[in-house]
Amino acid sequence: MGIWNDRKLIVNCLPLTESERAQFIRAAKDIPQKFVGDSTQRGSMSWTAAVPEELKAKATAVIGNIAPEECAQCPKLEWLQTWSAGVDKYQRPGILQPGSMLTNATGAYGQSVSEHMFAMMWAIMKNLHIYAASNPNAMWQDAGRAISPNGKTALVIGTGDIGSHFARLCKNVGMTTIGIRRNPAVEAPGVDHMVGFDSLDDVLQYADVIAMSVPSTPATRHLLNAERIASLKPDSIIINAGRGNAINSQALADALAEGRIRGAALDVTEPEPLPADSPLWREPKCLITPHVAGGNHLEITERRIISIALGNVRCYANGQSLDNRMPLKG
Amino acid sequence: MGIWNDRKLIVNCLPLTESERAQFIRAAKDIPQKFVGDSTQRGSMSWTAAVPEELKAKATAVIGNIAPEECAQCPKLEWLQTWSAGVDKYQRPGILQPGSMLTNATGAYGQSVSEHMFAMMWAIMKNLHIYAASNPNAMWQDAGRAISPNGKTALVIGTGDIGSHFARLCKNVGMTTIGIRRNPAVEAPGVDHMVGFDSLDDVLQYADVIAMSVPSTPATRHLLNAERIASLKPDSIIINAGRGNAINSQALADALAEGRIRGAALDVTEPEPLPADSPLWREPKCLITPHVAGGNHLEITERRIISIALGNVRCYANGQSLDNRMPLKG
Repeated sequence: MGIWNDRKLIVNCLPLTESERAQFIRAAKDIPQKFVGDSTQRGSMSWTAAVPEELKAKATAVIGNIAPEECAQCPKLEWLQTWSAGVDKYQRPGILQPGSMLTNATGAYGQSVSEHMFAMMWAIMKNLHIYAASNPNAMWQDAGRAISPNGKTALVIGTGDIGSHFARLCKNVGMTTIGIRRNPAVEAPGVDHMVGFDSLDDVLQYADVIAMSVPSTPATRHLLNAERIASLKPDSIIINAGRGNAINSQALADALAEGRIRGAALDVTEPEPLPADSPLWREPKCLITPHVAGGNHLEITERRIISIALGNVRCYANGQSLDNRMPLKG
Repeated sequence: MGIWNDRKLIVNCLPLTESERAQFIRAAKDIPQKFVGDSTQRGSMSWTAAVPEELKAKATAVIGNIAPEECAQCPKLEWLQTWSAGVDKYQRPGILQPGSMLTNATGAYGQSVSEHMFAMMWAIMKNLHIYAASNPNAMWQDAGRAISPNGKTALVIGTGDIGSHFARLCKNVGMTTIGIRRNPAVEAPGVDHMVGFDSLDDVLQYADVIAMSVPSTPATRHLLNAERIASLKPDSIIINAGRGNAINSQALADALAEGRIRGAALDVTEPEPLPADSPLWREPKCLITPHVAGGNHLEITERRIISIALGNVRCYANGQSLDNRMPLKG
């Protein structure tokens, strides 16, 4: 056992407290672990991760979102644990060696991202984005009718941790929820009616709110295209906090400019950062936040990321299968 | 009965549909009623009310927020039904004759105003006002940590229709609620702990959110003064949708500028409109909306106003006491 584990090394980039480090040391048993995280980054959006030069040859496991090209510089790397939920940049061919394990932090972001989406929904229902944008100009001017979520229908596209949490928030304020997932036979808390992706075109017409939290895959690229946006209710609200390319941005900008929907709230865009010349920046009906819904903006998100990583270190040390495994592509 | 009621005349300024007019005609029985409302104003913020010149001598009842000085031009006016909840401008001496009845539309605004307050609270917790204000400048920049309402405490100052509705919304998202009302022995739905106004200084320290919906009275003027603002938590959020003068604006502006609280959301200001040179307009931590939380921004608010007025017309015709009576001052 000792010999076996001497051939492993965990490089832990999490910004940990002293007591958390002690927990990780216990969890790793006899696997050596190097803590290279910067604890002062705790509570900030920008956790940085890098494997120090002298550890690259030995690292078998890395905890943290290192630069993808750094993976290839670690020849023994067999496990990467990210602190993000999205891992598409690590799934591409040539980043991790075939057979390597990739695990993400799905489950850490449900509350944070869904609350951000919920807040954005309310803001657009009550025109707060319009008022906030005109505050610096001292504009005391009515922006028109508000909407109540009570009695409205939310279409939740992607009903994982985030979508399900969002649906529960919506239910709490009197909304009906329709969920869309690959396998509609699987239920999700908060979702009243679950349908498959092949039913998307049938249910769009019922949606007052379209809330998207799908990962970036070939199947989700421009899922909300011009034709589907054209089929929405005139007072509908689009919210996206998954991946920016799930919406055709130009089609969305056109619909907003022509007043065909009430508004849109985007925490993710295509590309990111959103270029300064995007018409969405200057569209009063569009609220843009710079991919901050997850991040580490809630303390609880940080604690959950650390808890997921800790559990997986324990599994790694015990030779058990890891949680939150994500497939490699190609 | 016929003779008696011939001496009455209701001037109804509501923007009614044909079928609603028919309901009012039935409710008024043999009291004549003149419909002078503009039905095209339905759904807009700006319902206007005026008693036509030729009706001023005869009007005994007016439904609508006419100019206060117009009341004195109607010598027989014995009942004014407003479509607002706030009636302080009609309560002042010299506006209505002593003994006249003043009734308001309390009960119509609970959902609309409380939802607006709730939306503003979420916006500030998630920094949406900051992002919205910088959207026109194409700023892709993190505004810092977010807050979750879950586990936080809301101090609801004024627990009538609006405050109680707001407290229920807060409970739905995991908040604890403390209510403040004149008589703390009277419970209000959604309020976990009710205290009297004399306990305000004791409970401010526990509040993550201070939500105000008190009417304008001498007792509520500058209720939130510099000293009380100074006793708040550093991450606290002040929301005001009652009357602007319940907060000392300069003290609030100072606290925001010095970063002593997280933010403020004001649907009411002192005075209104808020002057262009107010520092609050340019304070990034402050979200201002132009007294639109109630208004007629939700269809349900309009329907409830009409329902309250209809019920009182029925009482007026039957010689019964009216609902929503408000005292005259001095």
